[in-house]
Amino acid sequence: MDIIEEKIEQAIGILRELDADVWMLFVRETAEIADPSFAMVAPAHVVWQSAIIFSRNGERIAIAGRLDAEIFRRSGLYGEVHFYDQSIVPELRQVMARLDPRQIAINYSPSNHTADGLSHGMYLTLCEALRGTPYVDRLVSAEEIVSRLRGRKSPGEVQRVRQAIRATEEEFIAVTPLLRRGRTEKDIADFMHTRLARTDLQPAWDARSCPIVNAGPCADSGHAGPLTSKTIEHGQVVHLDFGVRKDGYCADLQRLWYVRRPGERRAPGNVQRAFDVVCKAIEAGVKALRPGVPGWQVDAVARRTIVEAGYPEYPHAFAHQLGRAAHDGGTILGPRWERYGNTPLGLIEVGNIFTPELSVQTEAGMVGLEENVLVTEHGCEFLSNPQTEIWYA
Amino acid sequence: MDIIEEKIEQAIGILRELDADVWMLFVRETAEIADPSFAMVAPAHVVWQSAIIFSRNGERIAIAGRLDAEIFRRSGLYGEVHFYDQSIVPELRQVMARLDPRQIAINYSPSNHTADGLSHGMYLTLCEALRGTPYVDRLVSAEEIVSRLRGRKSPGEVQRVRQAIRATEEEFIAVTPLLRRGRTEKDIADFMHTRLARTDLQPAWDARSCPIVNAGPCADSGHAGPLTSKTIEHGQVVHLDFGVRKDGYCADLQRLWYVRRPGERRAPGNVQRAFDVVCKAIEAGVKALRPGVPGWQVDAVARRTIVEAGYPEYPHAFAHQLGRAAHDGGTILGPRWERYGNTPLGLIEVGNIFTPELSVQTEAGMVGLEENVLVTEHGCEFLSNPQTEIWYA
Repeated sequence: MDIIEEKIEQAIGILRELDADVWMLFVRETAEIADPSFAMVAPAHVVWQSAIIFSRNGERIAIAGRLDAEIFRRSGLYGEVHFYDQSIVPELRQVMARLDPRQIAINYSPSNHTADGLSHGMYLTLCEALRGTPYVDRLVSAEEIVSRLRGRKSPGEVQRVRQAIRATEEEFIAVTPLLRRGRTEKDIADFMHTRLARTDLQPAWDARSCPIVNAGPCADSGHAGPLTSKTIEHGQVVHLDFGVRKDGYCADLQRLWYVRRPGERRAPGNVQRAFDVVCKAIEAGVKALRPGVPGWQVDAVARRTIVEAGYPEYPHAFAHQLGRAAHDGGTILGPRWERYGNTPLGLIEVGNIFTPELSVQTEAGMVGLEENVLVTEHGCEFLSNPQTEIWYA
Repeated sequence: MDIIEEKIEQAIGILRELDADVWMLFVRETAEIADPSFAMVAPAHVVWQSAIIFSRNGERIAIAGRLDAEIFRRSGLYGEVHFYDQSIVPELRQVMARLDPRQIAINYSPSNHTADGLSHGMYLTLCEALRGTPYVDRLVSAEEIVSRLRGRKSPGEVQRVRQAIRATEEEFIAVTPLLRRGRTEKDIADFMHTRLARTDLQPAWDARSCPIVNAGPCADSGHAGPLTSKTIEHGQVVHLDFGVRKDGYCADLQRLWYVRRPGERRAPGNVQRAFDVVCKAIEAGVKALRPGVPGWQVDAVARRTIVEAGYPEYPHAFAHQLGRAAHDGGTILGPRWERYGNTPLGLIEVGNIFTPELSVQTEAGMVGLEENVLVTEHGCEFLSNPQTEIWYA
């Protein structure tokens, strides 16, 4: 079954589960400013103001400008397609009057960016369009609907994420021979981009920092891009944070290599110890990762493991979700810091895909790993082949 | 000079011109849900909540999460870069207290989608962050700032749009031999996509409808994609609406071919007449296109030309702006229909790039053209080589 059809059926099921009457997307110019939910439930971009409406009774309604309406009609995904020339307001008010919903869930959320696709200007436009009707006071946040819908990967979605992970793992193998003394961080990134350009794969996030390459000690690791001024040296680690997007779905993995000094057989003790602690913390976190548990509790397990081993806390969440985006929104396995809003309080669900990740600093550079796991009824399945030993270039 | 530096300098000039104290972008996860203004003034995507602040005094301030801050620091574009771990609120309140602006312009606009990058959830987050300070009541729409900034193309931007137009015109030449009886609309699109895949060019909009291909009579022309079920026939027109994106800037052109019957030398009279009227209407509109004129007046000139020639009105605007996006927002040369909000009321400015376009239906298919023009002090410069005669495949 087509993934859009899978997601629409899921959406209607979630409306029933939450006893929510109507979920509405209200969008325009989606190629330039896209509601992250739009591509989940719509077949192609639209230009004019459009409303996509799903009801708990299974209705699927699209209202679009004349030049966009054919996109919806041809898709066969919607039971009703309305079009307009000069203003969406009359059609929108008629559809609302007929459905007469108790609440209309719309896409805004302070915490979950993938549930926050309604712009403030479009929110004002919607309020104006419904002014004088009872419906303007029935607008509520669709945060919970979108978080569940996006978080529970359908069979087709899991399959696509698996493919992206396999493809990413192949790229790690391909780049390994290059990780030698004298290469710059930028050399590594350029090599990986050149390979991608020959395939149907895209970087899973901003190409300027995908891969993130950390060669040796790094004060400012994070989301910044690779440097031409940093060169791989003997006795250092090389750390990559990378993923590809394939058929619209992403992988997001970190891998670690050690570059041996002449005559050296293995990484020195401090690097090996850091690596072992990172593995142990990921393992402990993944063990705690089960349906029904709030996200922050899983983070706390991994965080405690690191701190008890004598390393400082990592300055981020233990895991985010993965899917259409590398940062797929919804429940996060992270600390209850203000910047995460309510996402660490969410409950883990079957079908969620998470990215357990953390790192510690050593004199040889940053030692970090990231895996991709699927939540199942009884725990977790690793979708990536977890790295359990330091790799050597 | 780098285009981002050009746009930041322009932005500060516009703040002075409008006597506006501060313009602020408030964003997160920009790779997944991007404020269209973000890439104009920022060097790369960010993950955590970030504020980018420009003042009429020339201050350039970034506040970002620890893992994102290095992106801003390395760019050299900002005088101050602040970072945070757990919450952006304390830094944001401190910066605001120091600047003490009379108003804080933020990116929301019912009418201009490229000035509407602040999501409703982020708007609520911002209000909460400033709660209890005087600044929460000083938030105003940055619509006018963004419309001017995005609309007035800098020299670097005009140069890039020119390049995209040249590249698009080459693709029209390359596809011409293919426009023969028996080819489907989809064949044409596939051929063009295959060519693009070998270059550094991307489709200027959703690839599923870029190109739009209309072979022969079409009831539902618009933004929908090409069909495998529609085949080019003798005695029909082929109409393409297509543009490429090159180095981040777009072209958007329509071209028209006629497919002759055996022994036929020229298009029949009704096609030629339609073509001549379309040319004449575009010419009339472009002649009326001058700085200081409100957009709707230009549309009215072109619209009148078509109607006086006995054809029905086109169901869209005469021209939108062009730049980073094919639909670049701001003043539109369109009718005062509700769906266009206040954009037809905007005044045309020097440096705007517009896309005069319209079409009429004939028995042989849709006859439409679209050109790209730059507004200069004394009128318009054609950036495209305007089509003045019907092309034959």
